[in-house]
Amino acid sequence: MIKSLQHRTTIRRYKDKDVSEELLNGLLEQAMRTQTMGNLQLYSVVVTRDDKQKQRLAPAHFNQPMTTQAPVVLTICADFRRTTLWAKLRKANPGYDNFLSFMNAATDALLFTQTFCCLAEEEGLGYCYLGTTIYNPQQIIDVLELPPLVLPVATLTLGWPDEEPVMSDRLPLWAIVHDEVYRDYTPVQIDDCYAAKEELAVNKAFVAENKKETLAQVYTDVRYTKAVNEAISEGLLKVLRQQGFM
Amino acid sequence: MIKSLQHRTTIRRYKDKDVSEELLNGLLEQAMRTQTMGNLQLYSVVVTRDDKQKQRLAPAHFNQPMTTQAPVVLTICADFRRTTLWAKLRKANPGYDNFLSFMNAATDALLFTQTFCCLAEEEGLGYCYLGTTIYNPQQIIDVLELPPLVLPVATLTLGWPDEEPVMSDRLPLWAIVHDEVYRDYTPVQIDDCYAAKEELAVNKAFVAENKKETLAQVYTDVRYTKAVNEAISEGLLKVLRQQGFM
Repeated sequence: MIKSLQHRTTIRRYKDKDVSEELLNGLLEQAMRTQTMGNLQLYSVVVTRDDKQKQRLAPAHFNQPMTTQAPVVLTICADFRRTTLWAKLRKANPGYDNFLSFMNAATDALLFTQTFCCLAEEEGLGYCYLGTTIYNPQQIIDVLELPPLVLPVATLTLGWPDEEPVMSDRLPLWAIVHDEVYRDYTPVQIDDCYAAKEELAVNKAFVAENKKETLAQVYTDVRYTKAVNEAISEGLLKVLRQQGFM
Repeated sequence: MIKSLQHRTTIRRYKDKDVSEELLNGLLEQAMRTQTMGNLQLYSVVVTRDDKQKQRLAPAHFNQPMTTQAPVVLTICADFRRTTLWAKLRKANPGYDNFLSFMNAATDALLFTQTFCCLAEEEGLGYCYLGTTIYNPQQIIDVLELPPLVLPVATLTLGWPDEEPVMSDRLPLWAIVHDEVYRDYTPVQIDDCYAAKEELAVNKAFVAENKKETLAQVYTDVRYTKAVNEAISEGLLKVLRQQGFM
């Protein structure tokens, strides 16, 4: 059991109190125990404490205030550069400038990120995971001066919690678990999956505020629209090519 | 602190003892507390206990014996199907048949996977993370009957440990951490990063066995070659298109 997980919430407001380098490094070191492909550790972490750097990163994260308010911002990158430089210095011919290698490095980076999250929360720290990282990778690459074969895949804002948000709801377990084969969802099952979520007062308010008919429409028409997803997909593929992963 | 993490190793041999459905479901339920994009939970888990299904999955994992020997195999999938079906039933226009949506769902799935790993190990369970999942996704899709907008991104074999492997080495912390901007590696720094790893008896034996000159050559010429990476990259992109993510 990981006790803190039972009441975990995303923390977006932090106390005006530093996260010491000693504590941060201790957590990063522990997180490095995470399994990794061929024990290559295909990730790097860029630590941002400098206010000017936070301000330069903020637009990539749609200026969400936690980016500049958090004492520490961590950008976790898929990184095949270190391994590639090593190979070149050892008379070896590296072949990691391709999509599979990106996916392998991104996987390493994300697994490492989540172990770090579990550890940080056990220490009483709070974090916010910024999914915007892969929306605007080019801006982040520029600010953090990321070389080829390095691509940011996750950002965490980190600090001591200065809020106690209500825990968010989750789907029932049966909605995500399939026995032996994928059991496709009937309309009745979809209704059952989402009924509790749709009934929540906060979600009903969300629908009303956005002048929509259904909660799903808030997602498809406002939060994650087809047009934006398609434009960002193109940009992301372009950055993958430019960083040498395609 | 997560105590079990300090001595974590990959477990490939399991006792002949079941993992109860109650225990497994409890761990999956706790892992669902993991942060997720817009609280959409863009993942599904297919649980394999049936021996015939394990045998059908095994070739996709290069017949590594833990695939059939473990009491439980979990295949964790990036899943935008459930959300898409929901949207269609709620007069909403889903736009998740694109690369960004795959990356968002894969991220959700991998973060969930790693929380589960931390939880399972705290319970005394052992697991092996099978990176082969994205090497042969089509075989897995066929065996698990995965529909469009569902793609396997991680597999865990799970059971009670029947071995005590030596902990594997890790790079020094400074090798993965960068302050404020990415500090590119000088040849001397690369030497320092990999010196301890190259000196390990097990790695020296590995070089000798494979009749190579350097450890890096074992990676580039034997374990993860350019030709195989490129062929698998093409296959993976094909499956992404076929499952409707591109």
